[in-house]
Amino acid sequence: MDLLDNELWATFLGGAVKIILQVLLVFIGFFIAKAIGQKLINKSFERMSKTRNMHPGRVQTLLKLSVNVFSYILIFILITIIVGIFGLDIAPLIAGAGVVGLAIGFGAQGLVSDVVTGFFVLLEKQVDVGDYVTVAGIDGIVEEVGLRTTQIRSFDGTLNFVPNREITTVNNHSRGNMQAIVDMSISYDDNVDEAIRILQDACNEVAAEDPAIKEGPDVLGVQSFGDSDVVIRIIGKTENMEQWRVERDLRLACKKALEDHNIVIPYPHQVNINKTSS
Amino acid sequence: MDLLDNELWATFLGGAVKIILQVLLVFIGFFIAKAIGQKLINKSFERMSKTRNMHPGRVQTLLKLSVNVFSYILIFILITIIVGIFGLDIAPLIAGAGVVGLAIGFGAQGLVSDVVTGFFVLLEKQVDVGDYVTVAGIDGIVEEVGLRTTQIRSFDGTLNFVPNREITTVNNHSRGNMQAIVDMSISYDDNVDEAIRILQDACNEVAAEDPAIKEGPDVLGVQSFGDSDVVIRIIGKTENMEQWRVERDLRLACKKALEDHNIVIPYPHQVNINKTSS
Amino acid sequence: MDLLDNELWATFLGGAVKIILQVLLVFIGFFIAKAIGQKLINKSFERMSKTRNMHPGRVQTLLKLSVNVFSYILIFILITIIVGIFGLDIAPLIAGAGVVGLAIGFGAQGLVSDVVTGFFVLLEKQVDVGDYVTVAGIDGIVEEVGLRTTQIRSFDGTLNFVPNREITTVNNHSRGNMQAIVDMSISYDDNVDEAIRILQDACNEVAAEDPAIKEGPDVLGVQSFGDSDVVIRIIGKTENMEQWRVERDLRLACKKALEDHNIVIPYPHQVNINKTSS
Amino acid sequence: MDLLDNELWATFLGGAVKIILQVLLVFIGFFIAKAIGQKLINKSFERMSKTRNMHPGRVQTLLKLSVNVFSYILIFILITIIVGIFGLDIAPLIAGAGVVGLAIGFGAQGLVSDVVTGFFVLLEKQVDVGDYVTVAGIDGIVEEVGLRTTQIRSFDGTLNFVPNREITTVNNHSRGNMQAIVDMSISYDDNVDEAIRILQDACNEVAAEDPAIKEGPDVLGVQSFGDSDVVIRIIGKTENMEQWRVERDLRLACKKALEDHNIVIPYPHQVNINKTSS
Amino acid sequence: MDLLDNELWATFLGGAVKIILQVLLVFIGFFIAKAIGQKLINKSFERMSKTRNMHPGRVQTLLKLSVNVFSYILIFILITIIVGIFGLDIAPLIAGAGVVGLAIGFGAQGLVSDVVTGFFVLLEKQVDVGDYVTVAGIDGIVEEVGLRTTQIRSFDGTLNFVPNREITTVNNHSRGNMQAIVDMSISYDDNVDEAIRILQDACNEVAAEDPAIKEGPDVLGVQSFGDSDVVIRIIGKTENMEQWRVERDLRLACKKALEDHNIVIPYPHQVNINKTSS
Amino acid sequence: MDLLDNELWATFLGGAVKIILQVLLVFIGFFIAKAIGQKLINKSFERMSKTRNMHPGRVQTLLKLSVNVFSYILIFILITIIVGIFGLDIAPLIAGAGVVGLAIGFGAQGLVSDVVTGFFVLLEKQVDVGDYVTVAGIDGIVEEVGLRTTQIRSFDGTLNFVPNREITTVNNHSRGNMQAIVDMSISYDDNVDEAIRILQDACNEVAAEDPAIKEGPDVLGVQSFGDSDVVIRIIGKTENMEQWRVERDLRLACKKALEDHNIVIPYPHQVNINKTSS
Amino acid sequence: MDLLDNELWATFLGGAVKIILQVLLVFIGFFIAKAIGQKLINKSFERMSKTRNMHPGRVQTLLKLSVNVFSYILIFILITIIVGIFGLDIAPLIAGAGVVGLAIGFGAQGLVSDVVTGFFVLLEKQVDVGDYVTVAGIDGIVEEVGLRTTQIRSFDGTLNFVPNREITTVNNHSRGNMQAIVDMSISYDDNVDEAIRILQDACNEVAAEDPAIKEGPDVLGVQSFGDSDVVIRIIGKTENMEQWRVERDLRLACKKALEDHNIVIPYPHQVNINKTSS
Repeated sequence: MDLLDNELWATFLGGAVKIILQVLLVFIGFFIAKAIGQKLINKSFERMSKTRNMHPGRVQTLLKLSVNVFSYILIFILITIIVGIFGLDIAPLIAGAGVVGLAIGFGAQGLVSDVVTGFFVLLEKQVDVGDYVTVAGIDGIVEEVGLRTTQIRSFDGTLNFVPNREITTVNNHSRGNMQAIVDMSISYDDNVDEAIRILQDACNEVAAEDPAIKEGPDVLGVQSFGDSDVVIRIIGKTENMEQWRVERDLRLACKKALEDHNIVIPYPHQVNINKTSS
Repeated sequence: MDLLDNELWATFLGGAVKIILQVLLVFIGFFIAKAIGQKLINKSFERMSKTRNMHPGRVQTLLKLSVNVFSYILIFILITIIVGIFGLDIAPLIAGAGVVGLAIGFGAQGLVSDVVTGFFVLLEKQVDVGDYVTVAGIDGIVEEVGLRTTQIRSFDGTLNFVPNREITTVNNHSRGNMQAIVDMSISYDDNVDEAIRILQDACNEVAAEDPAIKEGPDVLGVQSFGDSDVVIRIIGKTENMEQWRVERDLRLACKKALEDHNIVIPYPHQVNINKTSS
Repeated sequence: MDLLDNELWATFLGGAVKIILQVLLVFIGFFIAKAIGQKLINKSFERMSKTRNMHPGRVQTLLKLSVNVFSYILIFILITIIVGIFGLDIAPLIAGAGVVGLAIGFGAQGLVSDVVTGFFVLLEKQVDVGDYVTVAGIDGIVEEVGLRTTQIRSFDGTLNFVPNREITTVNNHSRGNMQAIVDMSISYDDNVDEAIRILQDACNEVAAEDPAIKEGPDVLGVQSFGDSDVVIRIIGKTENMEQWRVERDLRLACKKALEDHNIVIPYPHQVNINKTSS
Repeated sequence: MDLLDNELWATFLGGAVKIILQVLLVFIGFFIAKAIGQKLINKSFERMSKTRNMHPGRVQTLLKLSVNVFSYILIFILITIIVGIFGLDIAPLIAGAGVVGLAIGFGAQGLVSDVVTGFFVLLEKQVDVGDYVTVAGIDGIVEEVGLRTTQIRSFDGTLNFVPNREITTVNNHSRGNMQAIVDMSISYDDNVDEAIRILQDACNEVAAEDPAIKEGPDVLGVQSFGDSDVVIRIIGKTENMEQWRVERDLRLACKKALEDHNIVIPYPHQVNINKTSS
Repeated sequence: MDLLDNELWATFLGGAVKIILQVLLVFIGFFIAKAIGQKLINKSFERMSKTRNMHPGRVQTLLKLSVNVFSYILIFILITIIVGIFGLDIAPLIAGAGVVGLAIGFGAQGLVSDVVTGFFVLLEKQVDVGDYVTVAGIDGIVEEVGLRTTQIRSFDGTLNFVPNREITTVNNHSRGNMQAIVDMSISYDDNVDEAIRILQDACNEVAAEDPAIKEGPDVLGVQSFGDSDVVIRIIGKTENMEQWRVERDLRLACKKALEDHNIVIPYPHQVNINKTSS
Repeated sequence: MDLLDNELWATFLGGAVKIILQVLLVFIGFFIAKAIGQKLINKSFERMSKTRNMHPGRVQTLLKLSVNVFSYILIFILITIIVGIFGLDIAPLIAGAGVVGLAIGFGAQGLVSDVVTGFFVLLEKQVDVGDYVTVAGIDGIVEEVGLRTTQIRSFDGTLNFVPNREITTVNNHSRGNMQAIVDMSISYDDNVDEAIRILQDACNEVAAEDPAIKEGPDVLGVQSFGDSDVVIRIIGKTENMEQWRVERDLRLACKKALEDHNIVIPYPHQVNINKTSS
Repeated sequence: MDLLDNELWATFLGGAVKIILQVLLVFIGFFIAKAIGQKLINKSFERMSKTRNMHPGRVQTLLKLSVNVFSYILIFILITIIVGIFGLDIAPLIAGAGVVGLAIGFGAQGLVSDVVTGFFVLLEKQVDVGDYVTVAGIDGIVEEVGLRTTQIRSFDGTLNFVPNREITTVNNHSRGNMQAIVDMSISYDDNVDEAIRILQDACNEVAAEDPAIKEGPDVLGVQSFGDSDVVIRIIGKTENMEQWRVERDLRLACKKALEDHNIVIPYPHQVNINKTSS
């Protein structure tokens, strides 16, 4: 009995020592991994915030999210390894995780996709609160950028909740000067060269008085031949969000200038060849 | 025989003790995990409801759903681990769960997706009962927001059942003042400056008498040149849901004001060049 | 030999006892799970049918489906566990189930999806037999709602078989009063205020005689300016399915009322500026 | 040596006995499963064919397919289990099956999907040979309904092969009476009430002589106001496939009746306001 | 030492015998499976070619493909089982196969899908070389049907390579007589009955002289009322590919016949109500 | 000790011998598989290049790609098997491969798909450098066909990079003669037979002088009746890429020929019925 | 005890030696794999940068990304193997990796897809900063090409962030000369040959003075017959980005040249057949 007990004991002790050593090893690995991981994340965010000149608040938000995700993954691995060491059959836990993972993958992939996209929209400063943007077919002013949804106020007053996954290509209309485009029609009978000269003069006058105009406006020339009119295009650069007002001002000024020189915007024309009823 | 029995017994007892210890360990882990999990969920909802100023009823609904889902997952894990400890081959159970999981994943992912989206629509207060919204191409008043479907009453009386997964971008028209837009046409022969002045006067009069108008209405200027008309745009902010009535009132007032000054909305014009039949 | 036999026997008996105990344990677990599961399903359906005031027949259909699905899953798990206990290699069975599961998942996911959707369409009473609905681009009267397909009779007599998975957003036109909309055009030369008064009188007369009209009809005002006409909108609430008849009656009454006051619906107008051929 | 041989032999025999018992058990399970399965399939088809009043030939086709699929699955499971019992490593076989399964799943899911859909199209009698249907954008007469493809003959003579998976919503135009719709235009100057009376008389005459007309045709009233005409709608129910002929007959009869009362279908009208060239 | 050697030897021999027996068993199973499989494939193709009256060349192509695919699968299974018997860890091989399978599944599923669809297009004779078909939006004459791509020559001379997976619904315009449709317009002032009689006479004359016309052409009656014309439809059956020529001949003959009776195809009509400029 | 050492040693040696034999077996299998595989690939490409008359350079490119892919797969299998033999736990390696495989499958499936499609586009000679093709909505001349992207030069000078996966149906306009189509309009008052005769004469003259015309051009007859014109269609076959020039030449020649016979292309006609303003 | 200790010790030492040897073997394999891998990557990039004449900075970016990805994969494999050698149950780690991999696969596949596409867009020089391109429906000048997003400045001033995965077909308008297309309309009464001669002369004059014109412009001939005009097409090659200016200049010059020869761009024509009101 002694001998056997001893043997059993030795085996048991050996097993216990082995388990304790393994657990220690795993915990050491865990803390090293955690420390290294957090340091790496911190550093990369520091470097990013320097390179990209980002707002400290936004950096904190992104940093916190990254550290959280990293910790959750690490803790999950730690638990499963330790449970495994204690000789519990780990398979069910894995299976459970797998089924949950599948459920997440299929049912809630939109949610994961929202957060991932939101992360990069924030990180890359694609939109800022107050920007005039077009995303996912919605046109308006950004009111809030969240990790899951972005809120955009349309010009008619509607508040739009756009899930971030819907944000693919972002058209940001608030990053630099905008272009004003005005198309003026003159008759085929009018002198095009003279009309261009008159329009350019009118544009110059408007530009002289309006500080919102940054470049031009320049008369480009004959853009196209309509059914009854020659279309002349004028373009210019304006301050952001001033393009519509400038376009309206240019339209009025050009119309007046042409009228002063007896050039009118032509009505549709038609040549009628009359026959008497057969 | 003694010796062997003893040995067998020892082994058996050892096994039994091991199993009991494992079961205990698992149960302890289970209750700790459950307690911690519920506390975390409770706390995060408390914080949320404070931050977002949410209705207590809605918070309870979401909280209950979250705790339920968490419990189901935990119980599933508990069962599989304990069955595993008792030495039953756990593989089939996992396989069964896997097949069921797959079936859920493929066949009923829409359902999971509905609930996940519904959860966030409720949590983020994207729509409230009574809001006038546009979701999934449906325009109308929200009658009920459920975890699986949202019911929207169209203006023609139709009741629409929208599965929540169909809700991506939400256009909520009941969050703040709305914009009224009226486009008035005048003839190319009329004086634009005078027309703008007349329209602005008419708008001011309407605004003075109508408390639903919050801003403007302002005459912006020449919006575009039509085939036979100059289009002048008027915009203003109104109380929510009053925009259509205000637009109608503005249209009538503007028409009258223009008529009083002998400016009429022009019919389509055409220049006819007559030839006799060749 | 004795000794060995005994030992073998003991081992064998031990194994047999272990197996029997396991099987018993599994069967007990199975019956408990089945009983609990069925009770839970029954109770939740009872509660549902009370809350939602559902037709008993429909409740039975849904209840039966739920219990069947639950039983199939339980039996599948029971079989695999027991086969596993008898020491048969369970892997192939799982593999077989996996392949079949995959085949179901990919090839027949439409079918699963049909049933899941059908279940909720029935449960949430989104459509009833006899309702006038629009689903999946089909407009018509529901003839039958099944677990896999819904049959809709179009107004032209066509019978449409719609797989339930095609049913996403349901537009149910038979849940409450419907709106009648009539747009009347008057000339730009006519007095709008007078026309509105005449139309309102005509509407009141129609409403007085027609019990199907529940609200209005009210003349809203100037809806838009057409090329040659001012459009005046009239809306009213009518009994379900009576909206088209009421609209037709209103159209006729409004036309007569306007004619009685010498206001006619205007033809398209055009201003011709004549030139002789150059 | 004796002793060892005996022992080895005993072990060997024990193993052999174990294997034989397992194989027997599996085979018994197999035959029971097969018998039960086939009986269940047979019974459910019997019940179905009674409930749905199906053609015996069609029932046989579906029954045969169901039994075949069931047998293939059972045989696959049987083989893998028996190979496993003989101690062969079953993993490769499973792996092989898995890869093949994956290939089927991805590459040939269309094929599986065809058969599943075809099965239900046949079972639910959504289309019969000779029916006039619209499926997958194809309009025509069904020539053949197979498990993989359905053949439809367009009215222009084209033969269309439609894979069953393309069949989602089926529009079957051969299940009951069809509706004939005729829209007649009268001038704004004509008396609407008189025109309706004349049209109703003409319809009654047509209906009296044509046995294919089952209901109506009834003059509904003013359907809409066109630019230059008042549109009056007439609808009626006709025998299946006779709707187009009846519509043509109604059109001719209505035109004649209106002409007899000096009401003509109006040409487009336009009001010309003439100016001399400025 | 003797004893031990013997024992070791016995164990070794036993293992060797076991392995050899297993290999033999596997090979026997392999050849039986191969023989049975090939026989089954041969037979089913024989039966098919008889039932469907297929071209022997086409049958050989399909048969060869089927046998090849079957052999590759069998050889793959054979190799993995035998490697497994020799005690090599089979897992990596399986893993390798799995990764390759995954790569095939995702990256090259199009290819697999092409072959599967191509197989059935050939088997079901949906298209033959020389047929005039519409597949995947391509209209033209089939030049080659391969397992991966089908080549179609458009009428403008373009050669189109259509991957078979793009072939869903096949519109085959070369399977039977085609329909010629001609719509003739007459004035509202003309006598419809007389016009129908004249057109029918003209059609009869054309039909009498043209052997490509198989049925009709018949004048159906008033198809619709245009803005300024009454549309009368004529349809007839013609030989395949002759429909366009017949339609052109009918158009010319009908125009002449109507002109002979002083019925002309009407120009668009408009009623002008003239006002002098206000 | 001796005895034990010997035993241990024997076991160790036995294991070592077993391992060496296994490794040898694996290497032999590897080289045989590689040799056979390469030979098979070489042979099939030889046969292909003969059958399809392919350019040697293109064959080399495809051959090299095929051999590389085959080698990578073989080496991967070799490594995993050998590592497995040395008793290292192979599972992680497989898992690693699996995760990488998954990442490839999901993230880079487009890339794999590009190469697979590119392989077949090259193999089947669907496009050659210099061909005028339409792929993925891009119209132009092929500048380069790569394994990942195809470069197409549009006629406006744009260089388009088309990922091969975007290439589904290829419309190759450079494989044989093209068709020229010209539609000429004549008045309803003109004699159609005479116009056809005149046009055919004009076409014959053009064809006589232009060697690029390979067939026709033939006047087909009355293609359709327009609102104010009878449309006559002319088609002919021309050398590749000459179709547009020939169409332009035919248009000019036909216009002149008709004018010479006093047949003019008619302007839109309208019948005006004048009323004085009511 | 001695004996047992010795034995135990021997076993323990044997195990330790085995582990150390395995670890060494793994590390050696790791460093060899890393060295070979990096060398292969370096070499292939060297060769690429030579063949494709790439910018050194861009090569460094791509090289660094490739080496990083390679290292991460290798380290992952190393860790899992070593952990496995120390007898820890590796399954959970794998499971963890699998779940994370799944999450990446589903939720963040867009991100992986962005980087893969970005890699090739950079590698193949499909777009350069400053190029005028059309990608993903966005038209503009490229401002930045990153691994995840590409920034494009539209001509109206909008800055567009395009995720690289949205970049499929790239239309690069800055790779070579562009084509100018001008369509001139003349009347049916004008002499086409003379008009073509006049236009060609005008084009030659413009080309003589404008160094941006590289080829032509040539008058191609009659492009089409409009309702009231003959359309003559002129095309020419110009320097990149100068095409619009050249088109405008050509339009003006052609209009003047035609006017100088009394050929005017025709207004729409209509033949009026007058009837007095019936």
